[in-house]
Amino acid sequence: MNDTAVILSLLRKAMKKASLDAIVIPITDPHLGEYVPSHWRVIEWLTGFTGSAGAVVITAKFAGLWTDSRYFIQADQQLKGSGYELVKLRIPHTPEYIEWLAGNVRKGGTVGIDGRVLSIGLLKQMEKAFMLRKIEIHTDVDLVTPIWPERPQMPSGVAFDHLVEFVGRSRLAKIDAVREKMIEMGAGYHLLTSPDDIMWLLNIRGSDVDYSPLLTSYALITTTQVLIFANESQIPFKMRLHFDKDGVVILPYEDTAAILRSLPRGSSLLLNPGTTSAALYMSVKAGVNIIEGLSVPTMMKAVKNTTEIENIRKTMVKDGVALTKFFHWLETHLGKEPITEVSAATKLLGFRMEQEGCVGESFATISAWNDHAALPHYSPSVENDTEIGERGIYLLDSGGQYYGGTTDVTRSISIGEPTLQQKRDFTLALKGTISLASVKFPFGTKGYQIEVLARKALWDNGLNYGHGTGHGVGYFLNVHEGPQTIGTGASGDLKTILEPGMLTADEPAIYRTGEYGFRTENLLLCIEDRITDYGRFLKFETVTLACIDKSLIDNSLLTSEEVDWLDEYHQRVYDSLSPLLGREVKEWLRKKTTPIGEAGMQ
Amino acid sequence: MNDTAVILSLLRKAMKKASLDAIVIPITDPHLGEYVPSHWRVIEWLTGFTGSAGAVVITAKFAGLWTDSRYFIQADQQLKGSGYELVKLRIPHTPEYIEWLAGNVRKGGTVGIDGRVLSIGLLKQMEKAFMLRKIEIHTDVDLVTPIWPERPQMPSGVAFDHLVEFVGRSRLAKIDAVREKMIEMGAGYHLLTSPDDIMWLLNIRGSDVDYSPLLTSYALITTTQVLIFANESQIPFKMRLHFDKDGVVILPYEDTAAILRSLPRGSSLLLNPGTTSAALYMSVKAGVNIIEGLSVPTMMKAVKNTTEIENIRKTMVKDGVALTKFFHWLETHLGKEPITEVSAATKLLGFRMEQEGCVGESFATISAWNDHAALPHYSPSVENDTEIGERGIYLLDSGGQYYGGTTDVTRSISIGEPTLQQKRDFTLALKGTISLASVKFPFGTKGYQIEVLARKALWDNGLNYGHGTGHGVGYFLNVHEGPQTIGTGASGDLKTILEPGMLTADEPAIYRTGEYGFRTENLLLCIEDRITDYGRFLKFETVTLACIDKSLIDNSLLTSEEVDWLDEYHQRVYDSLSPLLGREVKEWLRKKTTPIGEAGMQ
Repeated sequence: MNDTAVILSLLRKAMKKASLDAIVIPITDPHLGEYVPSHWRVIEWLTGFTGSAGAVVITAKFAGLWTDSRYFIQADQQLKGSGYELVKLRIPHTPEYIEWLAGNVRKGGTVGIDGRVLSIGLLKQMEKAFMLRKIEIHTDVDLVTPIWPERPQMPSGVAFDHLVEFVGRSRLAKIDAVREKMIEMGAGYHLLTSPDDIMWLLNIRGSDVDYSPLLTSYALITTTQVLIFANESQIPFKMRLHFDKDGVVILPYEDTAAILRSLPRGSSLLLNPGTTSAALYMSVKAGVNIIEGLSVPTMMKAVKNTTEIENIRKTMVKDGVALTKFFHWLETHLGKEPITEVSAATKLLGFRMEQEGCVGESFATISAWNDHAALPHYSPSVENDTEIGERGIYLLDSGGQYYGGTTDVTRSISIGEPTLQQKRDFTLALKGTISLASVKFPFGTKGYQIEVLARKALWDNGLNYGHGTGHGVGYFLNVHEGPQTIGTGASGDLKTILEPGMLTADEPAIYRTGEYGFRTENLLLCIEDRITDYGRFLKFETVTLACIDKSLIDNSLLTSEEVDWLDEYHQRVYDSLSPLLGREVKEWLRKKTTPIGEAGMQ
Repeated sequence: MNDTAVILSLLRKAMKKASLDAIVIPITDPHLGEYVPSHWRVIEWLTGFTGSAGAVVITAKFAGLWTDSRYFIQADQQLKGSGYELVKLRIPHTPEYIEWLAGNVRKGGTVGIDGRVLSIGLLKQMEKAFMLRKIEIHTDVDLVTPIWPERPQMPSGVAFDHLVEFVGRSRLAKIDAVREKMIEMGAGYHLLTSPDDIMWLLNIRGSDVDYSPLLTSYALITTTQVLIFANESQIPFKMRLHFDKDGVVILPYEDTAAILRSLPRGSSLLLNPGTTSAALYMSVKAGVNIIEGLSVPTMMKAVKNTTEIENIRKTMVKDGVALTKFFHWLETHLGKEPITEVSAATKLLGFRMEQEGCVGESFATISAWNDHAALPHYSPSVENDTEIGERGIYLLDSGGQYYGGTTDVTRSISIGEPTLQQKRDFTLALKGTISLASVKFPFGTKGYQIEVLARKALWDNGLNYGHGTGHGVGYFLNVHEGPQTIGTGASGDLKTILEPGMLTADEPAIYRTGEYGFRTENLLLCIEDRITDYGRFLKFETVTLACIDKSLIDNSLLTSEEVDWLDEYHQRVYDSLSPLLGREVKEWLRKKTTPIGEAGMQ
């Protein structure tokens, strides 16, 4: 019996003692976001699965992990021998296990889930689904802590200021703007549950989570104060003084529920049911009018201001320089020294860290060789690290955290001569990247309306990819940041329109399981196009700057507009990056960015 | 004081007497559909507005009509001097007047709306919006009948059988299939409120409404019977005998609520809250478990069976022959005799009626010259009828009701030499028609995901149109039939996927207010494409057969794929229709369908 099996049997004993027929453990923390500190990585400890999305369901006879297609192959491998079955989600990011529970738990049975890591939205969904079979839900359940002696501590990183030269707007101005919106919405109180909302509001950053500069915290905005619930020892003395001046008060993290409980009857509290835990929600007294919706900072921070946009453009140049130096190094060192997926990612991080203002990676680098590149969210580790060989496909999806913005870029290159099918696949996916980047659309358009442009060339050829096309991107914050997405609309928010100032990824892809994968990902800044008799039109500016491997392009599949787009893009990449490169790398980039226009088209 | 003003003041007196601060009158009938018999055309009688969508709101000081952009120009004209203001909807088909009422009716005030023509879904929305200001809603309100002495009678057309050679599936087989689905959904009873659902289920048609062969009726499906609530005199004796044999029982139309009231506690009733009136809904006893969703016939009839598809293809040939004869007649008679919008529409109807199995038009023909063509839903009448001149744009949107299907087709032609801008506009909109018709997409795709393909060429040029791109089409039933649509997703159903067998319109357009408008509309049949490693793919077959005016095409704006599409389409039009045409018309069609391929492209 291995560790996983032992823990599972301990859990089942605890379930029996607590009279629970089933327990649910989601991959999340009390802030219900994607960026989970190690203290809350329960599923990784339980099952070995390291993916960022999913949920575990355990009954007396069954143990399963529900996750989406990005992770099917990875979960399959990581769950081997764990005692957990992989259950494939039909629609990503949906709690399909609720249906399973409704069908498999006995009538009148009980399901346990820790109310601290369960959103109130999800709880309501479960209650509705379980009603007919009278299945009860217990939310005061924590069976894990007692059997996890070596559970990691709660995070304790120290917060720091994000200077106004980077953020362009003072803390007080932001607080005022949020309060104005609260008045408009009739909310006297506003609960913030997502640390990135709080970081944005206060112009601070933290270091509690890998890759995202977050301080674990809640906040409650009132008409006169901003209460921050956090571990005081994580906030420097000087910052506390400034907070004091701005009406920002620090209270213990553990007091959040108690303060919510003290809100007077008849008052109005704005909160996001998707990120508010059942435990917090239920601490609010009856008689408090709860207004459910996205948080005001979520809506505001998605639209980058002019200072932020200026910094993003500068940051993209830095990130482009780092990537260019990396790919030049890779090309000139391959075959001369052993280079693996992990060592390449480390080298890349080195190039990024050379850039002024870079503080680290924005997510675990996907440095993937051949069949590993067919796993959309592969991340190399000591166990699966592979040497980059003489011939094949190398896919690199990576990003940096800079004071002046967060980057996220994917390039796929061919080492040696690519096959015809590889060129075809790469080009069809690239057509999607270009088509989405080139769209013009009326104000009011939502991401799901334009997503097909990224897929059309693939669909025409019976191909597809199993993930969304574009996520919002934070500003020296989470690399995945809502509310806007460019997706199929199956799971995402269907109300958010694309607005000037929003930064969104553009990453169509194609995966050949067991062989290779391609993805060309750029970040798109939404900007004004023009105003006509037919209304206000918007468009995108591709802000990511890195050359695209021409050896993988089948020119015959591109339209002349696509060829022009590529040549103009490459010209811009060269013009922007070359002044910052040494002679050798500069010359290398020049060759990589020569136009394909004349040679390619008849 | 004109008639409208007199009626308005009578209504206001009645409102005062009933202590109502506001009343709402939607354009609909107790079946909450689009096809409204004259008895229920209250808004037309009140205001003069003849559009098919909208709502009137009246307070002591304000009277307004809310409608969508399709009707802005028309409503503007028709409401002149009526005392009613036009309020423009931002999003079509949404009850934006609710927000207005919430803001304009005094705290604690009352709003009246006839519960027979108010959907329960809408009532719930209103209740929610009015809660904070404690505005009451009265649904037992009919202020109109007492002041409308000459109100048209309830319809009384006689029903007839829709033969199995056309429908391909017996009444009993359909009833069984619906019951099977009801069991799956846990519903012991199923209320049908849409007459077209009932027509489909029983394989009958009626003649109570213009353009749609409907019998005014409700139905309640139980595990052993189908209760039809209708005026018995409208159902022929022989049909009643057959009904009897199939377990279909006729009850008086007025008894619907009483029968619903008698459903036993603990039973389950499936109904569509969007088409069930508040009056009917509220007649159901507490303790009956109401399952809300689309009706089973709505989902089933959207997917045409093989017999229906075969008939649709035959019907399209007939309709194409009628259209071809019409356009040939128009071209050869223009200038020789006066032809107006109305006389042209009448002539077209004549050509349609020559076709076997055609029983009439499927909607009021849009026969529109020049600036009238800029009104998306213009319909010529005695007052605005205009002669078709020597030079200009003629837009014809029309359809026929055949035993073998319902058609809906739009063509725009240039009389005389078109301007460069006209060619450009026409071609950009046509690119949309072609692009949508050519898409291939994975099973599971929804209409809103592919709609941008119809708009992209227009958006690229700062152009757009203010209506959806595609509605579902019935089979010898409503020309607008859900649940699928191809739209922006703003107002429509976001859950319905496109399935093989669905018939949907493809009608991108461009309107130049005061000048002209273009629309090329074809019906698309969803069919299988292929199955690959990436799943099951679907595509469309353009089933409408009518030539597209080549003189309006700017070839330089078409890709070679679009040229190929057009040439292949025209070849198919000629091959399908020419065997049924006389020598002269055949030769005319041959010229109209010659390829543009070689001549057009460099």
